[in-house]
Amino acid sequence: MPDARHPSVPNLTTAHSAPLLRFEQLLLEKAPQIEGWFRREFHKTPAPFYCSVDLRNAGYKLAVVDTNLFPAGFNNLNPVFEPLAVHALQSAFEKLMPSACNVVLVPENHTRNLYYLEAVATLRDLITKAGYAVRIGSINPAVTAPQEIALPSGKSLRLEPLQREDDRVYVEGFKPCVVLLHNDLSGGRPAILEGLKQPVVPHPKLGWSDRLKSQHFAIYQEVCEDFAEQFGIDPWLVNPLFRNCGEINFLKREGEECLAANVELLLEDIKAKYAEYGVSDEPFVIVKADAGTYGMGVMTVKSVDEIRNMNRDARKKMASAKEGNEVSGAIIQEGVYTFETWRDAPPETEGMTTEPVQRSDMVAEPVIYMIDHYVVGGFYRVHAGRSNTENLNAPGAQFRQLAFNNACNCPEPSQAPDAEPNRFYAYGVVARLALLAAARETVAALASDAN
Amino acid sequence: MPDARHPSVPNLTTAHSAPLLRFEQLLLEKAPQIEGWFRREFHKTPAPFYCSVDLRNAGYKLAVVDTNLFPAGFNNLNPVFEPLAVHALQSAFEKLMPSACNVVLVPENHTRNLYYLEAVATLRDLITKAGYAVRIGSINPAVTAPQEIALPSGKSLRLEPLQREDDRVYVEGFKPCVVLLHNDLSGGRPAILEGLKQPVVPHPKLGWSDRLKSQHFAIYQEVCEDFAEQFGIDPWLVNPLFRNCGEINFLKREGEECLAANVELLLEDIKAKYAEYGVSDEPFVIVKADAGTYGMGVMTVKSVDEIRNMNRDARKKMASAKEGNEVSGAIIQEGVYTFETWRDAPPETEGMTTEPVQRSDMVAEPVIYMIDHYVVGGFYRVHAGRSNTENLNAPGAQFRQLAFNNACNCPEPSQAPDAEPNRFYAYGVVARLALLAAARETVAALASDAN
Repeated sequence: MPDARHPSVPNLTTAHSAPLLRFEQLLLEKAPQIEGWFRREFHKTPAPFYCSVDLRNAGYKLAVVDTNLFPAGFNNLNPVFEPLAVHALQSAFEKLMPSACNVVLVPENHTRNLYYLEAVATLRDLITKAGYAVRIGSINPAVTAPQEIALPSGKSLRLEPLQREDDRVYVEGFKPCVVLLHNDLSGGRPAILEGLKQPVVPHPKLGWSDRLKSQHFAIYQEVCEDFAEQFGIDPWLVNPLFRNCGEINFLKREGEECLAANVELLLEDIKAKYAEYGVSDEPFVIVKADAGTYGMGVMTVKSVDEIRNMNRDARKKMASAKEGNEVSGAIIQEGVYTFETWRDAPPETEGMTTEPVQRSDMVAEPVIYMIDHYVVGGFYRVHAGRSNTENLNAPGAQFRQLAFNNACNCPEPSQAPDAEPNRFYAYGVVARLALLAAARETVAALASDAN
Repeated sequence: MPDARHPSVPNLTTAHSAPLLRFEQLLLEKAPQIEGWFRREFHKTPAPFYCSVDLRNAGYKLAVVDTNLFPAGFNNLNPVFEPLAVHALQSAFEKLMPSACNVVLVPENHTRNLYYLEAVATLRDLITKAGYAVRIGSINPAVTAPQEIALPSGKSLRLEPLQREDDRVYVEGFKPCVVLLHNDLSGGRPAILEGLKQPVVPHPKLGWSDRLKSQHFAIYQEVCEDFAEQFGIDPWLVNPLFRNCGEINFLKREGEECLAANVELLLEDIKAKYAEYGVSDEPFVIVKADAGTYGMGVMTVKSVDEIRNMNRDARKKMASAKEGNEVSGAIIQEGVYTFETWRDAPPETEGMTTEPVQRSDMVAEPVIYMIDHYVVGGFYRVHAGRSNTENLNAPGAQFRQLAFNNACNCPEPSQAPDAEPNRFYAYGVVARLALLAAARETVAALASDAN
């Protein structure tokens, strides 16, 4: 019988797995110390409410390439992970409010992106299962009355206008004591959420209108250095090198020299690290908007000439980040090959995905989900039309569930360091380095608020 | 392919399911309020470190019949529950000690009961996966040097003598900051654990040498009444009536009148409740030792004559509780029929149990496991040689894993109130009523210590 919990598994094929194997071996040997280190760090700096992290595994390197504080793929997680998410939500909400309380969930302004709304419905159901009454309060000005939206899964989602009275928000007949933000605020911080008496988590200052990737990755680098020093590894194994440029206007060709210079320098740095580890792959960098999300304005660059010779179309694409904002800053990040591929199981298991079955190898990258400081699962983002040097978070991406024994929080010391549960435990460790960076980023953002 | 996570499922067959259906309906409708109530209660009274609860489901009644503060069946849980237990252990240990720390696990004194030692090894592995260094410190006087014990599962367990210096215990070369007791102290509180600087959890005063079932069930009754008042149910639906006798010596026939009188009164009370609910089953009571465990000294009684006419063999059996102590007090508890049966799937799934496959219906009762205030799974105790009015915790009992979607913490509002995830959610709710009773019992025990 087909089993939703037995999806096919990803393959990792690389000629240079020795550095990662040593890293996985270290994680297995030092798991209690590593968990202890995370405990101390998250005790000092509480984890964000939730977080998802995109990883790339090159075999010789396992790095975080993006950290999202408004994870929008809860519907991509294997449903067998639900009890884990329920536990973690209970733990996260208890810290905010020790006793019972109502939650209002503030989603993105989409009302027609059913795929996104499925994720909201999944999150709503998880919060309900965790034992909290929850309603969806939209800040979309077009939502002036409750709307019931039927979803492809058969679920239904009720959007209600978020209203404000004095310093509290509510939806009709429902007073929340926590506002759970699931809107990344790419369009800016809305007035309705400013100066509320109710806690808003994550804090609106963590929205994409305030957040910069270069800020996050600067802190991530510090976290990796702390971790690396503690456990005796080269931080490069988990940290993508990066540089950034403050003012770029792709259409007006402003800031191009900064970009070209940094691309060149970064390619040199990567080349040096590849030489150190005997990696024969061709170095590349990813240029992307320093603010924003949704995989727009992302470019793979292998030579500085590609920057100098960008045509008008490429410039236009880079300029159009989410919500039409022009890109003003850019981060130039070390490109990390993904040597993971995914091939779907034969058609009888078709029921397990919402996507068409692909019988050829697709480039894949793991996405790890966390709530509070707990890893609650993950999935693979796969793309049939992209190569192993390209951003996969792009139209055409599909999602493949992980089996439950790959919940990323259960190392299996009796198995080989690169056996699946241990590889996924490594994913959970590296993802939590980014989670810790996001925690420190939150503290920094709120401190700058106070100034 | 056979799948360990697809065990066969239990059947509930009863003519009187209406009261329970209403209860399950209530749980579904009020889940957020119920979870809120538990949150407030466990905030006021912290849950014990771990706990297992034996339930009996009669269809018209779903009651706790035993609450164990030293749960010894972690090896019976479906391994897919592991990530849940790992989460809950992290949460429980963090409350004790916010930063990293070593754990010493103090097991029962058995060195040859491999089945028990498998449970210890499973618990040890879960604690390791939760990120704590753990060693096993035995208080068995016969363990004077480290012993490596090979287990049937292929695991190995290293028992080391627990040693004491001043007011701290340790094992050679390993200083724990928490002592996790997994010895129910039926034989009394050992001097080595008295007055320690390290926290000992559960507190030794919660061992069976101090604990009385009648005390627990008196508190459980209060909890059920609180819950019932809050949510408008008859507490009898979840609470077994009971009475107790303080001084009974079965061999010397002392206290027999107290026992007979209480059996008679209790049978009358049950008859009245059965009449109220139109239940045509024959009432019965369970007589068992007020202190102690291991299912010895447990007797099913349908008429007071059975007490008056006990023969010498029956008396002897009642007198021999664990570790040879004579029974001095008895609890007379309302017997709860179990109308759940289990039939194993055909032989191709044999690999999923360590027991022989039974193709006939076996009487079954659910056992729910909790760590901190989290439900982390459960299993069925089944017995091929016992009836639905008998104690199943007896030699010959076998264990059957629950499927993961029955983790007992995930109600599914879109399904019928008695659909499996909802039935198991009900089990999780009732089990937590006993957990809350155990929490209050702990507070009472420690307060009496202070006096």
